[in-house]
Order: sequence, then C-alpha cells, then structure tokens
Amino acid sequence: MTIRAAIVGPTGYTGYHLIKLLAQHPGADLAYLASHRDALPNMAEVFPSLLGRLPERKLQCRPIDPKAIAREADVVFLGLPHRAAMAYVPGLLDAGLTVIDLSADYRLASAELYHKVYDHPHEDPGNLDHAIYGLPELFRKYIPGAKLIANPGCYPTTAAIAIAPLLHAQLIKTSPILINAASGVTGAGKTPAPHLHFPEQNEAYGAYGKIGGHRHQPEIEQTLRTVMGSIQDAAQPPTPEALSVLFVPHLLPIDQGILETIYLQPTQEDITEEAVFDAFEEAYDDEPFVRVRTELPNVKHVRDTNFCDVTARVVTTGNTKTIVVFAALDNMVKGASGQAIQNMNLVFGLDETTGLL
Amino acid sequence: MTIRAAIVGPTGYTGYHLIKLLAQHPGADLAYLASHRDALPNMAEVFPSLLGRLPERKLQCRPIDPKAIAREADVVFLGLPHRAAMAYVPGLLDAGLTVIDLSADYRLASAELYHKVYDHPHEDPGNLDHAIYGLPELFRKYIPGAKLIANPGCYPTTAAIAIAPLLHAQLIKTSPILINAASGVTGAGKTPAPHLHFPEQNEAYGAYGKIGGHRHQPEIEQTLRTVMGSIQDAAQPPTPEALSVLFVPHLLPIDQGILETIYLQPTQEDITEEAVFDAFEEAYDDEPFVRVRTELPNVKHVRDTNFCDVTARVVTTGNTKTIVVFAALDNMVKGASGQAIQNMNLVFGLDETTGLL
Amino acid sequence: MTIRAAIVGPTGYTGYHLIKLLAQHPGADLAYLASHRDALPNMAEVFPSLLGRLPERKLQCRPIDPKAIAREADVVFLGLPHRAAMAYVPGLLDAGLTVIDLSADYRLASAELYHKVYDHPHEDPGNLDHAIYGLPELFRKYIPGAKLIANPGCYPTTAAIAIAPLLHAQLIKTSPILINAASGVTGAGKTPAPHLHFPEQNEAYGAYGKIGGHRHQPEIEQTLRTVMGSIQDAAQPPTPEALSVLFVPHLLPIDQGILETIYLQPTQEDITEEAVFDAFEEAYDDEPFVRVRTELPNVKHVRDTNFCDVTARVVTTGNTKTIVVFAALDNMVKGASGQAIQNMNLVFGLDETTGLL
Amino acid sequence: MTIRAAIVGPTGYTGYHLIKLLAQHPGADLAYLASHRDALPNMAEVFPSLLGRLPERKLQCRPIDPKAIAREADVVFLGLPHRAAMAYVPGLLDAGLTVIDLSADYRLASAELYHKVYDHPHEDPGNLDHAIYGLPELFRKYIPGAKLIANPGCYPTTAAIAIAPLLHAQLIKTSPILINAASGVTGAGKTPAPHLHFPEQNEAYGAYGKIGGHRHQPEIEQTLRTVMGSIQDAAQPPTPEALSVLFVPHLLPIDQGILETIYLQPTQEDITEEAVFDAFEEAYDDEPFVRVRTELPNVKHVRDTNFCDVTARVVTTGNTKTIVVFAALDNMVKGASGQAIQNMNLVFGLDETTGLL
Repeated sequence: MTIRAAIVGPTGYTGYHLIKLLAQHPGADLAYLASHRDALPNMAEVFPSLLGRLPERKLQCRPIDPKAIAREADVVFLGLPHRAAMAYVPGLLDAGLTVIDLSADYRLASAELYHKVYDHPHEDPGNLDHAIYGLPELFRKYIPGAKLIANPGCYPTTAAIAIAPLLHAQLIKTSPILINAASGVTGAGKTPAPHLHFPEQNEAYGAYGKIGGHRHQPEIEQTLRTVMGSIQDAAQPPTPEALSVLFVPHLLPIDQGILETIYLQPTQEDITEEAVFDAFEEAYDDEPFVRVRTELPNVKHVRDTNFCDVTARVVTTGNTKTIVVFAALDNMVKGASGQAIQNMNLVFGLDETTGLL
Repeated sequence: MTIRAAIVGPTGYTGYHLIKLLAQHPGADLAYLASHRDALPNMAEVFPSLLGRLPERKLQCRPIDPKAIAREADVVFLGLPHRAAMAYVPGLLDAGLTVIDLSADYRLASAELYHKVYDHPHEDPGNLDHAIYGLPELFRKYIPGAKLIANPGCYPTTAAIAIAPLLHAQLIKTSPILINAASGVTGAGKTPAPHLHFPEQNEAYGAYGKIGGHRHQPEIEQTLRTVMGSIQDAAQPPTPEALSVLFVPHLLPIDQGILETIYLQPTQEDITEEAVFDAFEEAYDDEPFVRVRTELPNVKHVRDTNFCDVTARVVTTGNTKTIVVFAALDNMVKGASGQAIQNMNLVFGLDETTGLL
Repeated sequence: MTIRAAIVGPTGYTGYHLIKLLAQHPGADLAYLASHRDALPNMAEVFPSLLGRLPERKLQCRPIDPKAIAREADVVFLGLPHRAAMAYVPGLLDAGLTVIDLSADYRLASAELYHKVYDHPHEDPGNLDHAIYGLPELFRKYIPGAKLIANPGCYPTTAAIAIAPLLHAQLIKTSPILINAASGVTGAGKTPAPHLHFPEQNEAYGAYGKIGGHRHQPEIEQTLRTVMGSIQDAAQPPTPEALSVLFVPHLLPIDQGILETIYLQPTQEDITEEAVFDAFEEAYDDEPFVRVRTELPNVKHVRDTNFCDVTARVVTTGNTKTIVVFAALDNMVKGASGQAIQNMNLVFGLDETTGLL
Repeated sequence: MTIRAAIVGPTGYTGYHLIKLLAQHPGADLAYLASHRDALPNMAEVFPSLLGRLPERKLQCRPIDPKAIAREADVVFLGLPHRAAMAYVPGLLDAGLTVIDLSADYRLASAELYHKVYDHPHEDPGNLDHAIYGLPELFRKYIPGAKLIANPGCYPTTAAIAIAPLLHAQLIKTSPILINAASGVTGAGKTPAPHLHFPEQNEAYGAYGKIGGHRHQPEIEQTLRTVMGSIQDAAQPPTPEALSVLFVPHLLPIDQGILETIYLQPTQEDITEEAVFDAFEEAYDDEPFVRVRTELPNVKHVRDTNFCDVTARVVTTGNTKTIVVFAALDNMVKGASGQAIQNMNLVFGLDETTGLL
C-alpha cells in the first residue's frame, strides 16, 4: 500500500520540505497540491529546487476542494498559517481525510488559552477536543489511527525532548525553567520583512519579540505539564500548575536549525551528570530520532535531518548546581515537516523512520 | 601632543584592529610594530586591507627591542597570547613605556588564581600587583597615568557592563548569575583549526568548551565581586565571595560581535522594569560608549563600533520574576582594541572618545 | 573652515554610510537631514548603529526645504532613488547649494540615452549639461568648485578604474569588453523583496536581471568612450563608438563588496603582464585610493574602505592571449558614499583623503 | 540484488556525502569503510551528522585490505587525494572490485599530461588506458559494466554539460572558451588552511590560484575535444587541438555549489537564442539530472541535489554577439558523490536515478 498524500498551502517553507520528503518517501506518493491563491502556482516555479524531482504536473496546485482531495488522497498536510488552518480542517475531516496540521491551531488543548495566546477565538473547538499532539517521542501511543494530528511547534519539540525525561525522573524543579533558544531564519517564514532582509539579518544576532510572551511558551508549558500529570510514582509530586517556563528566542544568521540551551535547577543538590544521562537514556535508548550525545550539539550536525541531539552538563557554581541541557534540531525537519512525515508513518502503520533516514 | 604608539605582536586580529584605529586617530601615531617572528612581516601582507592606510614602511614589523621601542613610542599595546605577554611586560615597563596588555596575563588580581585558571604559574607577580583593570565605565578613576593596563576580556566587558549597575543598586541576587553568551569567530583567534574551518563553522551554532570552565568566568566574578565590595550603603550586604557566575559560551557563524543574555533573580519580588532602567541610567547616562536602549540589542548594531548596547526585561513566569539583561558589543572593538584605545586616551589625558566615534 | 553637509533622502544604505563617514570627518559637519516621508524619522531609529555617534537631535530628519537647507549647509548629498533626485536638484541648486547626487539621474550625459535606459524622460536637461561625473581618478580636474556632481555607480566605478588605463595605453581591443561582476546585497537597496529575503539569498549565488541590459552598462560605456576620445597620440585610434561592453552582474551572499573579473583582448599578441602593470602604475601611482596589487583582490580586503584594488594577468590559451583584470571595491564606500565624500573634499579644496583613511 | 559498496578514504567531504547517499539508497548497502589512518576512525565521530543514520558498527573504519573489501563489497569508491588513489587502484581491481575513483588520478587519458598537470608521473598507466570517464550525460554508453570509473571533477562536470551541446551543434567557436567559475568552500577540502579559516572566508569573494593554471582546465579541454572528435557531419570541422579554455575560478562564502558563467563566440553572427536552446534540449530532453531552464540558475536551487541547471542568453554588444551560458550544480553531489552514485547505478544496471531524487 502506498499512502496518498495531499498538501494544502504548500507555498511556504514547510510545504517545500514536505514535498522534498514525500518525493523520496518509498511508501507515500504526493497526490494533490491545493492552494487558496487565485493564480494557482506550480511549485517548481515557487521553489525551482523542486523541478525534476517529481513530474511537473504533480507540482501543479489545484483549488482547495476537500471532496476532490479526498478522492485522490488519504492524508492531507496543512501548511497554512494559524487561523487559516482551522477554517479548512472541519471540511477536510468530513471528507474522510486524515489531517496533519502544521499550524498552531490544534496544538493548545484549551480553546480559551488559544484565544488568549493567538488573540482570536478558536473556531473549531469540537475537533480541538479530538486532536492529537503529534510528538511521537512522548505521545506515540495516541498517534496510530488518529484522524487529526496537531504537529508540534519547532521550539516546543526541542524543549519537550530536552526536558521531559528530567521532569519524569523528578530530577528538576519546575519553576522557572529557563530556555535560551536560537533559530535559523526559515522559522520566521517566507514573507519578506524589513528585519529579515538579507543585509539586516546577515552577520546579525539578537533576541526578538516580546520576551516572555512568545506563542510557543504556553505550548511548551502544556506539554511539560502533561508529562508531570502522568507521573505516578511520587508521594507528593508538585502539581502541573506549578510548572512555568521562561522562553527567550534569538534569531541566527543561518537558514535552518534550532539550539536550545536550558538552565534547570536540580531537586537534589547531590545530582550527578550520570543521573541526568540515565534519565535521557531510559527515555531515548530506543528512539530512532533522538541522539543522546556526550558532545555538545550543533545545529550543523542535525541540518536536513529528523534528529534531535541532546546532551547535558551538571555545573557547580558557588554552592549551587545547575543542570544545563543542550538540544538541537532542524526547525524545518524534526521541527516541522520531518516530524509531520514521522506522524504520517505512525498513523498509517509504517515503520516510523520510513523516508526519514 | 601626539601619542606615539607601538604594538608588540600585531599579527592577530586585535593587532589588525589596533592599526586600523590608530591610523584614523587624530591624537596618536603608529610609531613601532614589533614581532617575535623570525621573518619580520609587513602588516600589509598579513592584512591586505591595511595597505595604503599608512605608509608601507610604517607597517613593517621590527624585532621586539624594548629600548628601541621606548625611543620611538610612549605607549605599547601587547597583542600577544597569554603567557607570551608577561615575558615582555617587565622589560617594556623598565624601558619607561606605558603598557596596555590585551592578553589575559594581568587581568586576574591573584597570581594563585591565574595559576589555576591558566594552568601556568604567573611569572611577573610584582607588576601584577600594580596592573589596572582597564574597564573605564567601572574603574575610570584608576586609569589616568597608569603604567600597566590589563585590557579586559571581551566576554567579561559585556558581562560587567550589563550586571554591575544592578549589583550596585542591590537589585539582584548574587548566585547563580546565568550568562548565556554568543560570540563571532574572530574571538577564537587567527590560527586555523578544524572546527573553525569555513565549512564547519558556516551555518553552524553551538556551545563550546568545558561548560562552567571558561577562562573568562573567574574574570567576570572578580569584576563583579569588586563592585560588590565597593557597596557601602547596605546594612548587611552579602559578602563578595557569595557571588558566582555560570557562563555558557556559544559560537556564532559571523565575524565579529558578542551578545550576552543574562538571567538574574531579583532581590525583591516587586521589582519593576523601571527600577532596572533607573539603575542603568544612573550608571551610564554620561557614558559615551554605553547605550541604554529600550529595543533589544543586536550584534549588527554595534559592529565596528566601541559601543556596548544594554537593555533589560523583567518577566514574570509562574510566581517568580526574572530580570533578563541583554548586552551586545563588538568583541574586536569594545571587547578588545577599541577599549584599548579608550584606555590609551584616558591614560594620556585625551578626550576618551578621540578616534572612536 | 568646516564644510556644513546636508543629506536629502538619508534612510537608505547610502545615507547610513554618509552619516557614518561625516560623523568621523574632521573637516565636515552633518548639518541637516531631510526626508520626504510624512513621519519624519530619526536616523538612530532607522539605523540603531548610529545612535551615540552624533547628538540625537542631529540625527532627526526635517522636511525637504531647499532654502532652509541652504541656510544651514554648504553641500547637499542626495540619497534618493533615480527619478526622485532630479525633482529636487534644481531647487537645491537655485538655493545656492552644491549638490552631490548619488542617484543615476545626472550620470548619463545624454538626456536621450537617459530616457532610453531609465524608461523615463529626463526632467532637468539644463542642469544635466553642467553635471560633472565625479570619478576623481579619471576626471579630477573638473571637480574642484563644481556645483553639481553626479556620483558614479558602484559597478561603473569598478569597471572604469580597471579598464581606463589599458584603454588609454591602447593595450586592448574595444569590443567586446566582457565584465563578469559580483556584488553584495546592499547594492540592491534596503527595500525587502522576495529574492532578497534572508533564506533566499543566504548560501546563494547567481546572475540576475536582463543579461546585457543592466542600467550600469551604458554608464560604463560612456566613461570608457570618454577616455577613448581623449587619446591624442595614436595615428588612427578607433572611434569611441566602436567600444562596447558586455556586463553580467551576479549577487553574492554578503553585505558589501564588488569584484569584477574582466576579460580583454590585447591589441598586440606580444602583450606582456609587465606592460599591463606599467599602464596601471602610470595611471595610479599617485592615487591614494587605488591599490595596484600583484595579489588577486578580494572584496574582504576593501570592506569598509574607499580603496579600489586592481590587478591583472595575461593568460595564453591556445594561440591567443587574454588580459584578465580583477578589481574590487566596497559598493557602499568607493562605490557610493565614500566616493561622494571624496568628491566633497575635492569640491571644497580639502585634502582628498580627509576622513577616508 | 543489493549492491554492496565500500569506501576507501571516507573522512573527507566526498566520503561524508557518499555515506549520506548510500544510507538512503534503496538498492545499495554500505558494506565496508576503509581508512589508511593508524587510529581507525568511526565516521560518526568524524561527522556527527551521520550518527544514527546507519548502525554505528557500519560507520567504523577498518584497514585498507583489498581482499577483505572484495569479500564484503562489489564496488569501492575512492575518496582519497590524487596520487594516493592510484596506489590502491591496482590492488582493488585485482581483488575483483569495481572501482569508482573520485580523485583526479584516472581522469586525464594521457599519462604524460597527468605528469605535467599534477607534477608527478602516473604510476598506473596500464589501468589508465581502461578507465572510463564517468560523465553519464556525455559518455553513458561506456559505463555499464565498467571496472574502473574516473569520476569527473566538479568544475569540469559543470563546464562539459554547459558547453558540449553547443560544440556538438557547431554553434560556437572553439577558442578561447572563457569560463568564469565560482565554487563553495567544500570544494577546497576539509583540511584547515589560513585562507579557509572562517573569519577570512566569511563575507569574502575573490579569484584564486594561478589564473589559467587550474588543474581542471586540461580536464575540461580533454572532454570538449572528445566531443569535437565525435562530430561527423561537418565538412571541415576544426581539429580538436584548436579548442582551448580559459578557466578562472573564484571562491564563494558558502558551503556547497558551483556556478559557471561561460562566454562563447558564435560561429555565425545570426545565431539565435532559440538555436542555443534547441541544442540544449536535443541533448538533455531525456536527461533526468540536467534541467534546461529559462530562468537564470542559482547554486541555491541545486543545493543537495544531483541536478545541473543550465540556461543561456545571446547578447548583442556593438556589432558582435556573445553566447553566455550559465550552469549550476552542487560540487558535492553532481560534482562528486552524487555523480559517483549515478555511475554506480549505471555500472550495475539499476535505474540511473535510484537514490538520487
């Protein structure tokens, strides 16, 4: 069986990477490209790199018609901006398609929180209740057979993989979790803007946005709280609400890649680096896409791969110890389109790594 | 009067920037270049960019002969590596020269600490006792007329400017001070190495070295403890020893620039952003090279300038507040050669900004 | 005497570099910034790098009022786009100001050619007749005292410096002159565009535009024909009309810099490299900003300088010889704002290098 | 059947790309890695990016033992430097292996020319006579079943694909063929060198080496002369010896990519762009890896692909016409390891595109 895949909204960078990955996927076929643009583009014109990887007619966008898509595809990836995605999801689900949404619209479980964070009421709360947060390393069991997958954000994927095992092993205090993050510019999307103009961003580096107010901060907190809520073996674990994250993003003058440097306080002052690595290895020994490393990760080592590299150091300064976790992934692959393919593989019962190694 | 300046060890990046700055300095003249290399280089060959800025004979290196240098120069900048610098300093001082040392050899006040940090005994403890740590914004009063200036490290300059005012105003707890730092590659020097090879460092980003073990960490602690020791107005201030820094450096794929993102815990939970800015403005309102900004700094905004840009945010996460300070400078200018010129100006009684704006 | 300088249209990259250069110029003072924007910007907001170099009030733009400008300034630089410039020039000249126009509006001597190349009739042919093409290395004698200077284009400056001496020495055939050029992205201006978006331009390289149709090609031809027309000592020199240029521009993933690799056919098959260097040295031995080098030039060596580096090779392939000339400059300095300052120095009788070394 | 592949000398960039490509190749298996280093490296340590793509034991290098390699592999790729390669080839062939050599050792058909160009006598002239120059688009018919493939150089692949069809169609004069080439830094190899140090090469661009003396120039000439020698249908074609190339390489501040801008004189003054495109399309209509485009190619569009993009313009300057051909490929893929895989596919009868789209 070959999975027939569609993409709605393929003209951004996530669409580009989805098409690249589908073109080389041995168990899936790109069956339908749908765009809401009036002048329906051919993707080989939008991204000349794609020309010749697939027959040109396969790269031609058609209108967004859920029934037509459902006739030719089993699964549809949504590469639309948030707000735009939830306008199409109900129709696509109704047409019988499995939906993997790369926008933020179904990531936050609470419609109320969505409203607050995205400054807009959620328009599809019914489906929101059934959406599965597609982070296989933490929530794999819910994914096979799912009808609606909320593909996680790039920063939250990095943070969750880096922190969850330590939280689960109760090695770290839950507030504040300090995340110093840096991302390549594709994370800011394909629309030109003054601060993303080449001469402004080249040879540049700085934090951006409202510090403490990034939309991915609540998404990170939600995931980590879910992990906390699942801990059974502690006499009196802290309540999930006690967890809070301080997330500070920076922009790097590179195309792709995220590195998060995370500062955590240990629950016990006699914490050892060995205990931290034990927690990582217990969590990730069988994970094909998490590489627990002793070396410090670098965005270059994960470029164009679906890997997330993780390591940690326990550092003593004065009388206190700090756990510093380093985690790197490619925001376009494990942070977006690669993880979406990983989710597709799981939903349809393929080997999870198919087309991704 | 024109200050006659010499450089010993000009073939590295700090030497290059010193020559550039001296060439356009209206009150100083490049009088002598001295190298320990057997084949004495002309600096126009080492750095073709310098050709034509000064007469070619002025760019010709001569042997390191303290008496000869003293005949032609008033001040000598040392662009040598640590260890190498302290072998020459006594002779240069004896010859009557004012010495501005850009290496780390006279930065740490304690010879014992130097031994530990640089894994080598200090060879000139006598002069070490008289060296002035040349960070004008904090220690200006000691600089005029000084004979031996230890020019601060690039990371420590950034950290000290960012943190000292908050420490002085007793707004922050003293341990642990978390410094997430990122630097351009010139900070790693001019000697080729596998990890600094263009294809390895381009499109790359990661932390490096022994986390918690960078040589600049004790230098930062020393400066901040000195600031603490000078606080008079508190009933029971913490002892300087209580201060400790966790410093985590990263390498950026750019030529020049440092940004430090610093996470501080306030002493009082009702801390306001206004109080933080008040502390900065009180400290820096009259400083020509510190720009207290409301916008987030970027290394691009300080490129090839002697400015250090600083701002702060007070962020609430859960029940706690964190002060996040952002500080940026050019590691080659305010972090090295520009600050050295600033020190020269002060030593010799010139306007501090001469040749630097 | 201090020259009082104004800038009309300072919000682009040429404006930024003009302000930087004027701030450190010992014989000139930035007296007036004028913008046609409704919300008059402060240049420290447009370019945070400028903050603190000059008093903030000096960085505040005011309306474009020729009389007001003339009360406070002696010279006005125009950083406007072509077409916009010629709308203001007559008024500024009438107000008594010396005008140095960095746009293309007064570079082509023929209004007819201007119409054809810029697809718009010239609106100020009267002043066009009196404009001086401000390339000091070729036309220095016309510049002192000039009232209207057309500051040359970045590509044409490079090409003219590279080719004129060989043309003058009658060492090269005049058609076709092949110029393979590459420029940094600041040359494309400050307005965001899809192809200048960081992720599109980073790690990229390619030719652009209509090959053979770049607007700088006629400007290059005009300059070289002028040089040809001035040759007196040949029995039967080719007519200037016989000269033609094929100009092929490429975009480099860097901020600043132009390198032109120029392929020329020698007039005589026994041409030697020595003869080529003799021609260069005769032309440029006393030029402060042209560095005739034996090494191959690199844009990095001229970055942020007013130098143009030139070298040549005579290469035999099969039975023919080709002269390959390499010339590099910084498109923002010698290719724009630095040359404008050089022109200002000449117009007002200052040493030509003032503020530029 | 699965092709079992070995790599001798995998620690350079070509080895890295071979491993990446073999890891995702559905019809081949990485069976043996052999290194001449004393401390046999694991490739996951040399290139952390490779970790997890293949089992770690598969990434472990073993000694270079031709018989042992032949027991486990069918084909061996040589990633060694020139000179080193020809020392191993005879033994590997004798052991029964098919050899695909990525060095320059078997590219030039004449041992005499090799001696001259590489300044060293050829040590294996016997096998040289049987080596096949593995450029499928021109010489496909010789590849199936070949025992020794000389994998072409990156610059020569670009040039041959760009020029051969025009030569074959007798549209261009054969001397001089001007090739202005630019390459990413991986083309210079993995060994650190002062001029490849990040701060020297970043934001840099210039020509390099002995102009007219690059080792790839004779390789380009040889290929084009072979094409000329095969032309049957002209009454009096020029002799192949009449062909000569002027090749001028430049270094770009990027990781991967080559763009060649080629200036050609038409044989007939009434040449049209249509005729040029006809020649390209006739040659490449069925080629899976040559994309004849109307848009100007960019190295970014071919990054990490096995495509070579080609287009052309016919430009009139003065009285003459010039054909300008633009060709781009990834020096690490179509210029090295991708083409090697393409050759492997052809040798063993697989679909040529297997594992490459």
